[in-house]
Amino acid sequence: MSLPKHVRLVEVGPRDGLQNEAQPISVADKVRLVNDLTEAGLAYIEVGSFVSPKWVPQMAGSAEVFAGIDQRPGVTYAALAPNLRGFEDALAAGVKEVAVFAAASEAFSQRNINCSISDSLKRFEPIMEAARNHGISVRGYVSCVLGCPYEGKVSAEQVAPVARALHDMGCYEVSLGDTIGTGTAGDTRRLFEVVSAQVPRAQLAGHFHDTYGQALANVYASLLEGISVFDSSVAGLGGCPYAKGATGNIASEDVVYLLQGLGIETGIDLDRLIAAGQRISSVLGRGNGSRVARARSAQ
Amino acid sequence: MSLPKHVRLVEVGPRDGLQNEAQPISVADKVRLVNDLTEAGLAYIEVGSFVSPKWVPQMAGSAEVFAGIDQRPGVTYAALAPNLRGFEDALAAGVKEVAVFAAASEAFSQRNINCSISDSLKRFEPIMEAARNHGISVRGYVSCVLGCPYEGKVSAEQVAPVARALHDMGCYEVSLGDTIGTGTAGDTRRLFEVVSAQVPRAQLAGHFHDTYGQALANVYASLLEGISVFDSSVAGLGGCPYAKGATGNIASEDVVYLLQGLGIETGIDLDRLIAAGQRISSVLGRGNGSRVARARSAQ
Repeated sequence: MSLPKHVRLVEVGPRDGLQNEAQPISVADKVRLVNDLTEAGLAYIEVGSFVSPKWVPQMAGSAEVFAGIDQRPGVTYAALAPNLRGFEDALAAGVKEVAVFAAASEAFSQRNINCSISDSLKRFEPIMEAARNHGISVRGYVSCVLGCPYEGKVSAEQVAPVARALHDMGCYEVSLGDTIGTGTAGDTRRLFEVVSAQVPRAQLAGHFHDTYGQALANVYASLLEGISVFDSSVAGLGGCPYAKGATGNIASEDVVYLLQGLGIETGIDLDRLIAAGQRISSVLGRGNGSRVARARSAQ
Repeated sequence: MSLPKHVRLVEVGPRDGLQNEAQPISVADKVRLVNDLTEAGLAYIEVGSFVSPKWVPQMAGSAEVFAGIDQRPGVTYAALAPNLRGFEDALAAGVKEVAVFAAASEAFSQRNINCSISDSLKRFEPIMEAARNHGISVRGYVSCVLGCPYEGKVSAEQVAPVARALHDMGCYEVSLGDTIGTGTAGDTRRLFEVVSAQVPRAQLAGHFHDTYGQALANVYASLLEGISVFDSSVAGLGGCPYAKGATGNIASEDVVYLLQGLGIETGIDLDRLIAAGQRISSVLGRGNGSRVARARSAQ
């Protein structure tokens, strides 16, 4: 199979990234980050999450962030909506696309969202119906697709029915997430081989964490499987609070560098993306998690 | 092409790694590191370098290190020998295998070893002859195979004649090094496609630096090209002093983790390898450059 000519990056830094950073961050800094990412050419930005601030304090103010950002035509500004209440809040904030998430591991589902996988899928039904009624697109996430902090290895056969259920209930794309970053390239290829029998490859995305240093090799393995959408996080913001030692999401800059090297179009200006990552890293007072950004800034 | 069933790692931490660490390290600590690596199951360890300590102070005491280590039968303990004087010193220290290095970039050759590529190759001739006379195997390195800090991109066509010259003069294996870590997976595949027309794949090795986060993806790309020998450095020790912002050699632990995931045999005990890396990182007072080691130690 030849490599895709074009790849779409789903920038999850403002949501999945900042959600998992210890440092609080103001609405103004979030707005600036999203605007910087728009300027850098990202076509899809996950801006925030409509959840109770009691559970995820980092995501408080998502409505204010949506109100504050400059929305460029052609760019998707999405939000996570884990339940109907969140969906309604997102709708009220003018959000045009939402995401829902399920787990491929029962133990993770129980501990992370306090219900079984099948119950979590049932909870999405009213969201999907409301989304249809309002013309809102819904993207699905499946977490723990290659490993679970409680169950260990997760098989592609466990992932496929969850991905299919999300697809069948109307998610236009399903992102498969290696939440704890333990997967390697062969597992990744097998994952997409097996799941693509249930959901077309063009509607699958890859979401890799770099905890074990495998994320970019997994992106390359996915490209070889014909996958052309990847979630990534500017400056490698975030990580998974359930995976100790997590070094976070794969850095968008490092993915763009790989894709440029492979001659694959992304529409992204790498220099501007690096600048966006440097800025938010300074705001957070943390090191930049992108090695491309570190190498470039050392030059 | 199917993946190799077995991969040999050439552990370069004690030489390429420590040579590029700012912190001095005692002969006793070097000996301990090499012994730890032997215990971890490495079959090939580059122990030191026989160069003037005036030029590379970190490599002073290589003869003492060779005298001090426990040499396990079946394990190769090698040294870098950049000139005949170095070769003779290595011989006197009982070294059974040496390595020589050339560059694929003229500018790098001039600035790094102060002569043209072709002059550097000529300088190896007396070493090769002496090695033949003493039954010593010689391994060749080519640096800057995917990029040069002075010339920028380096083509596979520039690398092939240098690799072939080393092979023709008697190097049983030629390691192709992405010294500044700028190469991506497609470049890596093309490199091996082109060079393997001059030197058989079974006699080529890959040596990747992780400066731009691409090293492990490049290893996977190389495996897909049938390459089955890789240089790596425990705890990601070292880097290239000529590449600012270099994050060093690819960490052996991260490569072993990938290979295990792919079901490829290495003969290496990952837990012991991690312990060896943790120990030398403590001695140097630096963070561990292996993400597998960091993730495991955070568990």
